[in-house]
Amino acid sequence: MTTPLLQQEKIEQAIRILNELHLDCWLLFVRETDEQPDPALKLVVNHDLTWHSIFLLTRQGEKIAIVARYDDDLVKQSGLYTTVRGYTEHFAPLLVETLTHLNPTSIALNYAVGDVAADGLTHGMYLQLVDALKETPYARHFVSSGPLISRLRTRKTTEELVRMRRAIEETEAVFSLVTPFLQPGVTERATGEMIHTEMQRRNLGAAWSYDSCPGVKFGPNTLFGHGKPSEIAMESGFIASLDLGVRYNDYCSDLQRLWYMRQPGEQHPADVVQRAFAAVKGAIAAGKARLKPGVQGWQVDEAARSYLVNAGYPEYRHALGHSVGRHAHDGGPVLGPRWPRYAETPYYPIEEGSVFTLELGVMTERGYVSQEDEVLVTSDGCEWFSQPQEEIYLV
Amino acid sequence: MTTPLLQQEKIEQAIRILNELHLDCWLLFVRETDEQPDPALKLVVNHDLTWHSIFLLTRQGEKIAIVARYDDDLVKQSGLYTTVRGYTEHFAPLLVETLTHLNPTSIALNYAVGDVAADGLTHGMYLQLVDALKETPYARHFVSSGPLISRLRTRKTTEELVRMRRAIEETEAVFSLVTPFLQPGVTERATGEMIHTEMQRRNLGAAWSYDSCPGVKFGPNTLFGHGKPSEIAMESGFIASLDLGVRYNDYCSDLQRLWYMRQPGEQHPADVVQRAFAAVKGAIAAGKARLKPGVQGWQVDEAARSYLVNAGYPEYRHALGHSVGRHAHDGGPVLGPRWPRYAETPYYPIEEGSVFTLELGVMTERGYVSQEDEVLVTSDGCEWFSQPQEEIYLV
Repeated sequence: MTTPLLQQEKIEQAIRILNELHLDCWLLFVRETDEQPDPALKLVVNHDLTWHSIFLLTRQGEKIAIVARYDDDLVKQSGLYTTVRGYTEHFAPLLVETLTHLNPTSIALNYAVGDVAADGLTHGMYLQLVDALKETPYARHFVSSGPLISRLRTRKTTEELVRMRRAIEETEAVFSLVTPFLQPGVTERATGEMIHTEMQRRNLGAAWSYDSCPGVKFGPNTLFGHGKPSEIAMESGFIASLDLGVRYNDYCSDLQRLWYMRQPGEQHPADVVQRAFAAVKGAIAAGKARLKPGVQGWQVDEAARSYLVNAGYPEYRHALGHSVGRHAHDGGPVLGPRWPRYAETPYYPIEEGSVFTLELGVMTERGYVSQEDEVLVTSDGCEWFSQPQEEIYLV
Repeated sequence: MTTPLLQQEKIEQAIRILNELHLDCWLLFVRETDEQPDPALKLVVNHDLTWHSIFLLTRQGEKIAIVARYDDDLVKQSGLYTTVRGYTEHFAPLLVETLTHLNPTSIALNYAVGDVAADGLTHGMYLQLVDALKETPYARHFVSSGPLISRLRTRKTTEELVRMRRAIEETEAVFSLVTPFLQPGVTERATGEMIHTEMQRRNLGAAWSYDSCPGVKFGPNTLFGHGKPSEIAMESGFIASLDLGVRYNDYCSDLQRLWYMRQPGEQHPADVVQRAFAAVKGAIAAGKARLKPGVQGWQVDEAARSYLVNAGYPEYRHALGHSVGRHAHDGGPVLGPRWPRYAETPYYPIEEGSVFTLELGVMTERGYVSQEDEVLVTSDGCEWFSQPQEEIYLV
């Protein structure tokens, strides 16, 4: 078995981030990870674990695993950790011994307030850990590893970008089946089912809750919220708006595309649709022009939001964009307004190597006119990571 | 939409358990539940939730949900909660108002030390909750809901038993394909893949980590631990031992079955195999005879363990059994020895309506001779819930 490339890249990145953040070590404490996955684990470990397991990375580059017998062979085989210590009865003695040897003054632990993608440690596990260290000073050295995990998730490695580009290609391939499928009378539900069948055929997972992935919106009476596709049927003069994210080899895409079903005699979409499409594309372009390393997400959102309002449309009621990666909503910075709902995340500075969605839409009398594409942040700006739709697909 | 029967049954059961345990209310605090599922949520809610959501059941029978807009429609549609309050910006004001009105002196919260099936609350979420209640006394009234969830999981309702019986039937149907499939030279891996194909065809999930479900052990050189089926091939004179659990409509099975490949001239399995099979069945029967409401799990394990040792075989290095339900390892009481690994769980008293596995095996020169079946605890004992294998299947 060769050392898994992706996890190897992320471990080296984590050690660099520990140094940037002046943290002595990162302690990842997990258990029964196929039932209760820690969202950060698979960045640095390539398999599941049954018993209590501890992964420690230090700013000096030490890579230490403390795992139960039965689990330890898999960790050793991975080649990712230079020290793998197996226990039979309890992890505590080995952990105390290891921390006493390292003697860290700051220990970044896998919990975070307000960032679901960095908050894997359960409260019961936290209490167990504090109890295991009660004779030592180390439980008092815990800090949240949220800032570390946020950087680790958002700075994509080469291998991560390869997988994400493939996820986008797979999504586009699924979208290509929609044009011939759409006929008057075809329902949102049937369209969602056709897409599910194709995802299964291609062995693709859903990037979010299966029932609402894809999101399918036909015409002006479609429902909002996190629901399933409905029994609403396609008609001439309607917009079909699809929101689809797939998971390919653990990495996600998140794209929205538009179709228009022409009425008798129409060559192009109705004017109201064309104007809305131009406003949506313009607003997204305004946000994209603002996106570069060092800016804060709310500034990017504001550029798109004010463009849309100046074009005479109502504000969208969500964020302009979010980080994509292992999850469709991958945590870290949000390109969103400074609403309490988003807590601190619109203030996080943007970093090179991040991949964000840019997404918004407006409701029209013909349906929901929306677009969503992905961009990769470069050293001085950003570039399209998916290829945006230039014209609404005609049916 | 009709009220989901299973969750309705479990909510009523939870209210009864609150009264038994003299707890004023159960507070279940969850978020982004398709990415980070709380293992207790789906017992009392029938869908996923995106934003921070609070479900409160009181000993007086009040059923209150505090959920974000967008999520609130699904909760209302379910009919499970009599009060559904939606928030836009932050859950805290509604929670403070609700708790001030209820004024509970004990609040069972969804964390637990040592019971993975009851420990869904993350540490970051816990800190958020404490912060939201900082102007009130209620954060000081939190206790673990572990004992409540343990009872709620182990006392199976009618609907849960129906689903679990079906999961067993599906497992037996998959097992029935193994006899014609086993030929000399067939590998553990190929057998695992054949079973995966059949599980997909039947739309069954794996009851534990997909790669090691089924567990497949051929002959005396098979590997232990949580690994995948290997390249070891079947030969005459070998035992094949399969450990399979499937998930049907969210409920699991967990069974082990045995095959023997006869050598030229053999009518029956080799004597060493027959003796081991009789000892394994005898030990399981000794455990089963001890299992009834009120006993502690370690006593049941001890009955099986001492039978096996008296029969001249080494002790098995795991517990005799575990609760089965929504997960293959469903938390709560363990029928296991008083080892530190199992913490308090071998001391939990057994309750009527629980379903446990009874499982053990011994290594022989022909392979691993093991059995695993499920039993349902009745008012004064227990009965087989799956139908045990009477004879080793011959190939």
